[in-house]
Amino acid sequence: MRTAVIGLGLIGGSLLRALAAGGHEVTGFDADPATRELARESGFSIAGSVTDAVRHSEVTALAVPLTVLPRVAAELAGHDGLVTDVTSVKGPVRDLMGARRFVGGHPMAGKETSGFAVSEADLFAGCAWVLCLEPHETDLADWLSLARLVTSMGARVVPVTAAEHDVAVAQISHVPHLFAAVLAEQIAGNPLAGALAAGSFRDGTRVAATRAELTAAMCGGNVTAVRGELRQLIGDLERMATALEQADPVAALIPHLEPGARARRAWPAVPGAPERLPASVGALLDLGRSGGWVTSVGDGEVVALRPESDRKLL
Amino acid sequence: MRTAVIGLGLIGGSLLRALAAGGHEVTGFDADPATRELARESGFSIAGSVTDAVRHSEVTALAVPLTVLPRVAAELAGHDGLVTDVTSVKGPVRDLMGARRFVGGHPMAGKETSGFAVSEADLFAGCAWVLCLEPHETDLADWLSLARLVTSMGARVVPVTAAEHDVAVAQISHVPHLFAAVLAEQIAGNPLAGALAAGSFRDGTRVAATRAELTAAMCGGNVTAVRGELRQLIGDLERMATALEQADPVAALIPHLEPGARARRAWPAVPGAPERLPASVGALLDLGRSGGWVTSVGDGEVVALRPESDRKLL
Repeated sequence: MRTAVIGLGLIGGSLLRALAAGGHEVTGFDADPATRELARESGFSIAGSVTDAVRHSEVTALAVPLTVLPRVAAELAGHDGLVTDVTSVKGPVRDLMGARRFVGGHPMAGKETSGFAVSEADLFAGCAWVLCLEPHETDLADWLSLARLVTSMGARVVPVTAAEHDVAVAQISHVPHLFAAVLAEQIAGNPLAGALAAGSFRDGTRVAATRAELTAAMCGGNVTAVRGELRQLIGDLERMATALEQADPVAALIPHLEPGARARRAWPAVPGAPERLPASVGALLDLGRSGGWVTSVGDGEVVALRPESDRKLL
Repeated sequence: MRTAVIGLGLIGGSLLRALAAGGHEVTGFDADPATRELARESGFSIAGSVTDAVRHSEVTALAVPLTVLPRVAAELAGHDGLVTDVTSVKGPVRDLMGARRFVGGHPMAGKETSGFAVSEADLFAGCAWVLCLEPHETDLADWLSLARLVTSMGARVVPVTAAEHDVAVAQISHVPHLFAAVLAEQIAGNPLAGALAAGSFRDGTRVAATRAELTAAMCGGNVTAVRGELRQLIGDLERMATALEQADPVAALIPHLEPGARARRAWPAVPGAPERLPASVGALLDLGRSGGWVTSVGDGEVVALRPESDRKLL
């Protein structure tokens, strides 16, 4: 396949390497001349502009920050190839791309470090990679060819609408960052608490050390979903606080703790046997909603895994 | 020193071993005959009743669950030796002990497993061990002899009032358990979120897997402080939700994230040079409040460590 990668940081650089390693024709571009030079020295075909990079591309991946996407999208105005992206919010990107041939993506991969220098061809092996599928909007053939490309890099493709994706990442990443921040702030005013803090504090606040600007940009980029999920969890905490006001606070608190305890013990889910599914929008979205993913794409069907039903019911 | 340990689970058993290893005379007791037998077979002096165990004891440690403490305290009615405990809440225990010679304690040590079989002599090496010091109430000589005993086991003694202890553990342990529970519950209703969850979810919810009864008992035992701190953090989260409603949510959110980010990056604090402090209630409580601890007890003075001031100011 003829491919292009725009933006050669950790994710884009790793994608460039993975596509080349998979035998695809791939051209890269980065706005930073030093990064372009570094990538060229590593033996890759690097263009001097977005337009040149995508000239013959069948699939183009935009691996630039959310704030840069509008500018890059504008540069793709005349291009009719399939475009995908790798940003961590999908609703706003879907709106931005309008009527172009586009399938939003989000590889759940990363490292503590960033930049082309630390990129690697096998970064995506085993990771979940969301590919957005909007009923009556996404071209299923485009979705399947992208899913084939992504599964060939060893990633698990999760089919999901942009709206469902944004709620899920608010739940499992963005709101946890806000929780970590308020937990960590407690020791700012109480050095004694810092001296006594151990495991539950260490783990519950780990992501609070992230730069405030990065966490704010992440949450602000997904503001509708984050606000909704945060309000929901504030309600849950309010109900716990009320339980702690009852005559028997221990008995009153238990039912508020049990669903989370069960859910955490059953996570991560153990997949059942591989199944063959028709490559239809309905079957794919049902797979994603049940916690499953595509492992390979065949002719009119996909091979998929999903959590064992007995564990789902735990 | 002549010592006794009542309750021979992980903490009590480890204390029995550590005291014996330190050359102290120590007698143990556990309500469970099989545990007594196991401890006897390990070569320890084990009594047949609480009364027998404490008969000649200068310092007695009660290492029984909070719910069992009232019964054991009643059995100590005629005993005039110094008594301490190891439970994770200090205000209710202080109330329970009334006018007896008592110094509340809380070693911040533990393991995933429990019982005498997994106890070990060096469990307390390097751990923080709270010893409660109430102005106009605690006998300073009693506190110092207990601090000498505890530091001789390699623990860092943190001097603190019961009320300050209970607020600090609500902040760094009890409320984090409640936060973990509501975060984990999110994936119960959304298998998709479970499939996408990675590092921030894994760490932020780790302690949610604890049995609901144990978490409820822990929070219920410290109900006043937990309720207060939980309400405080709900307020912090409300302010974040309001920030996310502003025209520029990213800019509005940053100031709510920065204090936690700074506090988490500065944790754990790096201690400055050892200092000698007068062994006075005021100096000791000031040490605890500034995040410091006693490393050894001398004649009318203690050697202490506390966070470097430049890191405190970060």
